[in-house]
Amino acid sequence: MAKGITKRSDDYSAWYNELVKRADLAENSPVRGCMIIKPYGFAIWEKMQAEIDRMFKETGHSNAYFPLFIPKSYLSKEAEHVEGFAKECAVVTHYRLKKDENGKGLVVDPEAKLEEELIIRPTSETMIWKTYKNWIQSYRDLPLLLNQWANVVRWEMRTRLFLRTTEFLWQEGHTAHATRQEAIDETIQMMNIYATFVEDYMAVPVIKGVKSESERFAGAEDTYCIEALMQDGKALQAGTSHFLGQNFAKAFDVQFADKSGKLEYVWGTSWGVSTRLIGALVMAHSDDNGLVLPPKLAPIHIVIVPIYRKPEELEEITKKVEVIKSQIPDRDIVVKFDDRDYFKPGWKFAEYELKGVPIRIAIGPRDLENNTVEVARRDTLEKETVSIDNIGTYCLNLLEEMQKNIYAKALNFRDSNTRKTDSYDEFKKILDNEGGFILAHWDGTAETEERIKEETKATIRLIPLDDEEEDGLCIYSGKSSKKRVVFARAY
Amino acid sequence: MAKGITKRSDDYSAWYNELVKRADLAENSPVRGCMIIKPYGFAIWEKMQAEIDRMFKETGHSNAYFPLFIPKSYLSKEAEHVEGFAKECAVVTHYRLKKDENGKGLVVDPEAKLEEELIIRPTSETMIWKTYKNWIQSYRDLPLLLNQWANVVRWEMRTRLFLRTTEFLWQEGHTAHATRQEAIDETIQMMNIYATFVEDYMAVPVIKGVKSESERFAGAEDTYCIEALMQDGKALQAGTSHFLGQNFAKAFDVQFADKSGKLEYVWGTSWGVSTRLIGALVMAHSDDNGLVLPPKLAPIHIVIVPIYRKPEELEEITKKVEVIKSQIPDRDIVVKFDDRDYFKPGWKFAEYELKGVPIRIAIGPRDLENNTVEVARRDTLEKETVSIDNIGTYCLNLLEEMQKNIYAKALNFRDSNTRKTDSYDEFKKILDNEGGFILAHWDGTAETEERIKEETKATIRLIPLDDEEEDGLCIYSGKSSKKRVVFARAY
Repeated sequence: MAKGITKRSDDYSAWYNELVKRADLAENSPVRGCMIIKPYGFAIWEKMQAEIDRMFKETGHSNAYFPLFIPKSYLSKEAEHVEGFAKECAVVTHYRLKKDENGKGLVVDPEAKLEEELIIRPTSETMIWKTYKNWIQSYRDLPLLLNQWANVVRWEMRTRLFLRTTEFLWQEGHTAHATRQEAIDETIQMMNIYATFVEDYMAVPVIKGVKSESERFAGAEDTYCIEALMQDGKALQAGTSHFLGQNFAKAFDVQFADKSGKLEYVWGTSWGVSTRLIGALVMAHSDDNGLVLPPKLAPIHIVIVPIYRKPEELEEITKKVEVIKSQIPDRDIVVKFDDRDYFKPGWKFAEYELKGVPIRIAIGPRDLENNTVEVARRDTLEKETVSIDNIGTYCLNLLEEMQKNIYAKALNFRDSNTRKTDSYDEFKKILDNEGGFILAHWDGTAETEERIKEETKATIRLIPLDDEEEDGLCIYSGKSSKKRVVFARAY
Repeated sequence: MAKGITKRSDDYSAWYNELVKRADLAENSPVRGCMIIKPYGFAIWEKMQAEIDRMFKETGHSNAYFPLFIPKSYLSKEAEHVEGFAKECAVVTHYRLKKDENGKGLVVDPEAKLEEELIIRPTSETMIWKTYKNWIQSYRDLPLLLNQWANVVRWEMRTRLFLRTTEFLWQEGHTAHATRQEAIDETIQMMNIYATFVEDYMAVPVIKGVKSESERFAGAEDTYCIEALMQDGKALQAGTSHFLGQNFAKAFDVQFADKSGKLEYVWGTSWGVSTRLIGALVMAHSDDNGLVLPPKLAPIHIVIVPIYRKPEELEEITKKVEVIKSQIPDRDIVVKFDDRDYFKPGWKFAEYELKGVPIRIAIGPRDLENNTVEVARRDTLEKETVSIDNIGTYCLNLLEEMQKNIYAKALNFRDSNTRKTDSYDEFKKILDNEGGFILAHWDGTAETEERIKEETKATIRLIPLDDEEEDGLCIYSGKSSKKRVVFARAY
């Protein structure tokens, strides 16, 4: 157990908060609700970005950049959207400070008041559709497949590092299409890309589905999403992809001439994932010793810790480390040799366990004699003595195995914490005792959904895409239902 | 000449504005002074980012992310800094909107007023040094070598796409060191990295130097910079690197214990380049036909335009294009085959000239017969008939040659527009007739600098680092001077 970190079984929430800070991922900033992403945490985000961005480009998307500021009036253009986003946002009202006449501080210059207030973007549909109005005239301009990597601000009252912060980093894709079907296909494609990324890189299994009407994005006709299960049995929405129908096209009057010259409204999608994924990564895999990072997203894959008493020993070890490094020529595998002399090996072992470095290699005088090293893998904490002659292959194989093992463990946890029930009493008992995903029948009404939420704090996470239809009765109202939906308490 | 774009000789400024828009680099947004960076412009920025980021990492820097918001009081902490940055900035005063009781619009909720106003970062020294206070205790925590890629806001009254916008994208490096010398070395290293990037990738020659006191960054002891010359004879500052001394360490009380346990203030640097570089790239090389992009930063390197009447011809050409593509296996070389049937070859030729694609390959029925293509290079507009058998090597060599040629042309222009003078009358004549860099003696006083600026609009761009000392007399005051400085009118 990492020194000074609460155990998961004692207080999962405290464990998470402490781990994020102690592992140098992020910390709270002096500005309420805003975080500082520290270099180690940001390195994980960069790896996520690189893969996601590659997937976007391989499917024909380009990046662009739209303004941070949105004129207040834009938010009111789309009727549903304003309900969802106009409430809690940062409002710029002035553009100048001046010296306080009475003291030496600064005050807002009342003469520098904006005619129309500017909102810090909580999401950019309004600004982007305002722009698409000028960019789209003809079917030749479609599809328009854009994405931006940006910071957004939502004035959250209760914040938690990565999971819910006032400012966060994300990508937001915004596409425009000539037909309804093409837009729906795009929406589903992006959900699938998110699912592939989260499963293959983050090693977190997800369920794909569609949100119920009350959980839908404000301004969308349908919200597709992927949902993951955390170790405390709570669900976490990992990515959303919205089919916007013609809602924003109508709000901003974006029409195109088809081949016959007829004007039609454009069909839209938007989709995003954020730094929240880092929170999901931590919550899904890490343990009481610290982070457990899937190798594909680890900033450092292998750390080598020398164990020595005399400087001559360190010298010999250092030579051997060069041999080890030369056996790992893959440029994507980052090997760190920590020869700092002011930290003891035991301190370093704990530190790299805390930071979730997948492989730790220890090498001391006896290893030199035997031409071996001690290899410890972070996921299982198992150690093995390995000959230096084949350490390269051993490590590459081990990294692959760990990636699979971490996923398998999470999948196993998810599967053993996914339960079917047809009884509302049992539903409540599962929620209070085990948590996890619950597959239950629901009558399809917002009223039932709302009551279940009020009584149990569980929400409909999604209506699964790939599950078969099955006749049943709503666990709450007893009315008939054609399909089970996924309930859970969620982040 | 590109259709509808003003010629440089008629109105350089109009040429620039029109070109940036017509070549799909950027456009003005509905929010005053903020730009929308379009996909083609953003692709150039991504290429710039990738190289600069690589150079930063190779020199030991890591990325991190600090909040967008800075509490108003932070800006006043460093006495000089507040003078430079507190003036024109976006101020967040409220965190909620509500429905207007009289209409259906939105109004700022007066009850959601912030206790302390938040400033959108114009630069992040204050937030970062406030954070470093917690991160730095011992010499073991130094050096701290961080960078962030971020958006910043400075409320500019007169804006121009890329060159000066209210919001812009940049990177800001912020480092902390144990000694004065180490911090100075870092400052110079980063200036050199910028110079290498601008010369080797952007193909723009630069002069390196130090700013005079009045042009220095607010809060720095010294500002190192690189200065480039644009085609209209005006200078453009392409990057700055600041030696902060202990100014911010003292303002935010950042001290470290050295090996003997003695407390000392930390030495700092900060350095940045921004989307302004895209403006410099356009202004340095482009011509009346459109953009001229150095191959190393071109989003598309080679465009292939088919010339055909019948569908069978297009089919044959398409097969040949696959052969051509297979000869260019370098993944970093982007080849685009534009077989859109609703645009004529002539339209495409003009379009790719406008967009500055380095190599254009045209291929028609006669080329099929002769196993040749027509290759046009964008920098000189020269065309050549080339056998398909060695088109791969030909193109790779040509791209290299173009990169060098574009640089050589800019260097030649810069050299023939750098003039020495010892007479203030001649100084003024040069400024009015030729522009360019003027090397002249200056007495070292802010008064003289200010008067020259008022009378001629020329500023001291920098005090060159590598020029030899030379006794002389100030062109304005006649007082003695040890070295020539570089004057110019500037962007």
